[in-house]
Amino acid sequence: MRDFKFHVDTAILFGEDQARAFAEEVKKLGSRALIVFGGGSVKRNGIYDTITSALKEEGVECVDHGGIEPNPRIESVVSGVEKVKAENIDVIVPIGGGSTIDAAKLIAAASVTGGDPWDIVVKKARVTGALPLATVLTLSATGSEMDTSSVITNPETKEKLGWASRHVLPKVSLLNPAYTKTVSPYQTASGTADIMSHTMENYFSLNDDAFLQDSFAEGLLRTCVHYGPIAVENGDDIEARSNLMWASSWAINGLLNTGKSQAWSVHPMEHELSAFFDITHGVGLAILTPRWLRHLLNEETAPKIARFGHHVFDIPKKDTMEMAEEAIDRLHDFFLSMNVPMTLEEVGITEDALEPMAKACADHVGGTIKGFVDLHEEDILAIYKASFKN
Amino acid sequence: MRDFKFHVDTAILFGEDQARAFAEEVKKLGSRALIVFGGGSVKRNGIYDTITSALKEEGVECVDHGGIEPNPRIESVVSGVEKVKAENIDVIVPIGGGSTIDAAKLIAAASVTGGDPWDIVVKKARVTGALPLATVLTLSATGSEMDTSSVITNPETKEKLGWASRHVLPKVSLLNPAYTKTVSPYQTASGTADIMSHTMENYFSLNDDAFLQDSFAEGLLRTCVHYGPIAVENGDDIEARSNLMWASSWAINGLLNTGKSQAWSVHPMEHELSAFFDITHGVGLAILTPRWLRHLLNEETAPKIARFGHHVFDIPKKDTMEMAEEAIDRLHDFFLSMNVPMTLEEVGITEDALEPMAKACADHVGGTIKGFVDLHEEDILAIYKASFKN
Repeated sequence: MRDFKFHVDTAILFGEDQARAFAEEVKKLGSRALIVFGGGSVKRNGIYDTITSALKEEGVECVDHGGIEPNPRIESVVSGVEKVKAENIDVIVPIGGGSTIDAAKLIAAASVTGGDPWDIVVKKARVTGALPLATVLTLSATGSEMDTSSVITNPETKEKLGWASRHVLPKVSLLNPAYTKTVSPYQTASGTADIMSHTMENYFSLNDDAFLQDSFAEGLLRTCVHYGPIAVENGDDIEARSNLMWASSWAINGLLNTGKSQAWSVHPMEHELSAFFDITHGVGLAILTPRWLRHLLNEETAPKIARFGHHVFDIPKKDTMEMAEEAIDRLHDFFLSMNVPMTLEEVGITEDALEPMAKACADHVGGTIKGFVDLHEEDILAIYKASFKN
Repeated sequence: MRDFKFHVDTAILFGEDQARAFAEEVKKLGSRALIVFGGGSVKRNGIYDTITSALKEEGVECVDHGGIEPNPRIESVVSGVEKVKAENIDVIVPIGGGSTIDAAKLIAAASVTGGDPWDIVVKKARVTGALPLATVLTLSATGSEMDTSSVITNPETKEKLGWASRHVLPKVSLLNPAYTKTVSPYQTASGTADIMSHTMENYFSLNDDAFLQDSFAEGLLRTCVHYGPIAVENGDDIEARSNLMWASSWAINGLLNTGKSQAWSVHPMEHELSAFFDITHGVGLAILTPRWLRHLLNEETAPKIARFGHHVFDIPKKDTMEMAEEAIDRLHDFFLSMNVPMTLEEVGITEDALEPMAKACADHVGGTIKGFVDLHEEDILAIYKASFKN
């Protein structure tokens, strides 16, 4: 293993009866909260009321900042920072999924760092601090509730870029699986694909001496394979919702890549899809991942893909290449079984965009995606083409 | 899942080149360190010098407190607390395995709480605070480097008891797998058994809805089964040492029992063995565990034991009871393969002590061990008897 530092000090409050405990924790962080949320579903389903009532009982003032987009845009961050200043906000409380939390992170960081928030995203400005974040999760997907990163879109420049800072690791996160009961089957499938993709990005690497971390990854993937279809079928299944929610945090909080090289490959390829076409992130990941594995399958990569198939899909031990082939098929079919549209065509991407997207992707990663297997622009294009239609 | 709070804010510095970073972290916690260690091996193998030199370079004064016993005794804690006061100590730095860290935890807590340290162990006194702890791990076993608990022995009363407090969670822990290269094959096997036992105590329960946590547990156990024998065979294998070390922390830091009922069974039974006979803790656990599983095997418990066998020992799916039987045999044989003496007789326990130990165990747990299956005094005695000889 490589040397590493692991320090994830987010306090997780998990379960159906934690709103009051959450409000008590927020009270320790500040007295004027910016409540960041999306399109208003948290108002309709009562989560907003539950949380803000608990906060007010603790004496925390709440100021609304709604309307965060599914792929959160830089404008929503800029207006959020203005509100922080105008309203003397001292703690940021996003209620939502990864998009809402990601926007909240940049609001928190830009409010203390100053300057143009987009400069933080493009690494022109270094984050010097952030207002404390206390998150309420309503969608099991991005893991933003327990990590240091955030992805923001700039529609003007067609850029969707990730950034990270130790300062925006949430201080406390409320994970109530019942809050995800109303998530649609489509978004549930997409979120499950997102969790699995984070895990696979960490898992698939040629440096294989982090056996423990990889075994954890296999357990996490097995959990998604078991519960994803159950939650898609029956949104009220609290056992499925609980396992998926706790899985979302551990897929990306840093444990699975301790001691390993960082080698994310599918995410940079997907980011172009949603930057160009605003598609659902998790669906883009699901479409690309089996094609990516198929593209890089060779004698050297087969053993890891076979190991994945054995521990995640219970494929019996046999010829390694045969196991690897079967594993890729099983992964594709698993996403299909959750009714994920498994071609780019089906989600509205046009064939003429494949080349410009491949070029943009190669540009954003500095020419080559260095991962499980290095991917150049022609590889990226080949994977996009293989993903276009069946 | 049950509601839970998870908040483990220990900063882990992992790897071979972290001594300086560790010293920098200690400097933030205090300027006068009590260096707690055991029989002096850390002086002979150079670890003591590496750490204290790094601390002195950072301007941290070091005061020695050596001689902590393998099952740490209350006297060593009492003398440690006296040293803390006499020397104005403000940070506690144990260098060693679980015994050393456990003693350091009680020194840290008793120094702030005041009163007789044993009162904390027997829960007569509540911990009101603790000096900060920064640990240097030299044995992969107890997980004390990343948890809130500690086990202390009182030879006068023949008691070996656990206690825990949020205040003694280490602030920072240095995990350098190279520091464990000189651990003997016997202690390596024992430590591996200890890690596995922590994991199995969390894993084996009848409430099975924490699928994610159980899948993590299976991955951790698979890691131990893979690397334990390698490290026993070749102490210098850094890949094995690394995986076992990181596994030791995750077996018991709280993740594996989030959302589950707490139901430790083998540990209370083993504590009587080492309280009465001062045997090696991990060896006692290895001897008892397969007999414990055999004792409670029935139609209700078989599915979980079969699942364990499938994911940990790769036993193919077939009749559940048959899988469970095979899993228990494989576990027994696995410990044997690491040359663990697998009977109580072999480690010097006398047959006439079985009844008094079973009585003492039942007394300490308030009559019944409430676990995977409830165990009364006669069950405990039956398990001791089954463990006595082959």
